[in-house]
Amino acid sequence: MKDQASVIRETDEGARKLARILLRSARYAAIAVLDPQTGFPFASRVLLGTDIDGVPVILVSGLSAHTRALDADARASLLTGEPGKGDPLAYARLTTQCRAEAVERDSPVHARIRTRFLSRHAKAKLYIDFPDFRFFRLIPENASLNGGFGRAYLLTGNDLLIDSPANEILASSAEAVVRDLVASDPLLARRTAVALKGRDGPKWRISGVDCAGFDMISGDLMLRHEFDTTAQTLDELCSHISNMKYSIPEI
Amino acid sequence: MKDQASVIRETDEGARKLARILLRSARYAAIAVLDPQTGFPFASRVLLGTDIDGVPVILVSGLSAHTRALDADARASLLTGEPGKGDPLAYARLTTQCRAEAVERDSPVHARIRTRFLSRHAKAKLYIDFPDFRFFRLIPENASLNGGFGRAYLLTGNDLLIDSPANEILASSAEAVVRDLVASDPLLARRTAVALKGRDGPKWRISGVDCAGFDMISGDLMLRHEFDTTAQTLDELCSHISNMKYSIPEI
Repeated sequence: MKDQASVIRETDEGARKLARILLRSARYAAIAVLDPQTGFPFASRVLLGTDIDGVPVILVSGLSAHTRALDADARASLLTGEPGKGDPLAYARLTTQCRAEAVERDSPVHARIRTRFLSRHAKAKLYIDFPDFRFFRLIPENASLNGGFGRAYLLTGNDLLIDSPANEILASSAEAVVRDLVASDPLLARRTAVALKGRDGPKWRISGVDCAGFDMISGDLMLRHEFDTTAQTLDELCSHISNMKYSIPEI
Repeated sequence: MKDQASVIRETDEGARKLARILLRSARYAAIAVLDPQTGFPFASRVLLGTDIDGVPVILVSGLSAHTRALDADARASLLTGEPGKGDPLAYARLTTQCRAEAVERDSPVHARIRTRFLSRHAKAKLYIDFPDFRFFRLIPENASLNGGFGRAYLLTGNDLLIDSPANEILASSAEAVVRDLVASDPLLARRTAVALKGRDGPKWRISGVDCAGFDMISGDLMLRHEFDTTAQTLDELCSHISNMKYSIPEI
């Protein structure tokens, strides 16, 4: 929907960063799909994860309406960014229009997504391997950011993807990378959470890392730290994180 | 989407009541519409109210993507029912498929909806009369209730409507009805909130009344009390409410 020239602001790095954070730090989303019988748009709720390249992923039951809809028509959109206190429309939210691709079970991509998803949604282990449950990758085609009243921006699909030659190697070594990070700075997640949102607490842990940043989780809260630039190597990723000591507080 | 016979439970009064509460006590919703340029389903966030006949209403800017989409194709769906602590999918939510009808400004219906909407969304007075803001009534055609894992129900549009010969007279006298209710029982909203959710507090007030129940608001919290049967007259409405003294606690 691109004929809104009069109210759309020029997309800058701040808008891109906000959009990425809204997509990557969402535990769940509203998904809109097309009802295969009536053609109506159909909105429902899904748990959300991200793949190593920033592509959002959903875990869905074959019995649910949105799964059957995506099998019939791959077009979907995700709404992320939850409101807090006060006017719900004052809070930033992102609509990402995507094309759904089913993830083949027992493929390397499936294994990678499964590990990342469980690190974020531990309780999904109860059903993640049920035969009727599947992952979809939702490839972003474009997005529309509403940063609050009168602050609208359009983004491309690429704005939401993580383009790095280190994606694959990081995916296969992420567990070790996180272990090393925690060994060298046990308070990294907690200090970053305080820096981002003033949310201190003993339970913060890193729930996922990729070349553009990392996710932190504490109970039902999730936060995302985005690097200023996408790491092109594992070394660069590690130096991005060790440089954070200059910007996050001691606690 | 009605070919899910194996997982859909038989719709009973409990499911209908839960669905009505999910729709009528929602301050905001995810709305799914059809992008007029690409045909993609498009999800965004809207403030929600209800008309006197139970029809959900939205107040939207003509500049927003969902408004232009509804002008091109009236088919929409609303997702209501917000998650709380723990697994987001354990919380009940409702998808209501609707057909949008623009509400003509300066009509009696507009005045009625405007009053009800402001009683729920006081801050909307800042923009409700802007020339580019409009109401849509979203007439429910059918709905799909997910009451938590494995508890799915289908509903008709009529299940979500309030069918009473007293709708019109109540709409024109609602303010006086609420005033009388509060005069006869100043703690009605507060006691009902405690009975429904254990949520005590001094700020609970009645924000809307109709022939099927009433809404209560306290800051960002909204609750809905549904009567067991829809009142067919104003007298019956008043006796429904005075009979509540047997079921809500003294505080």
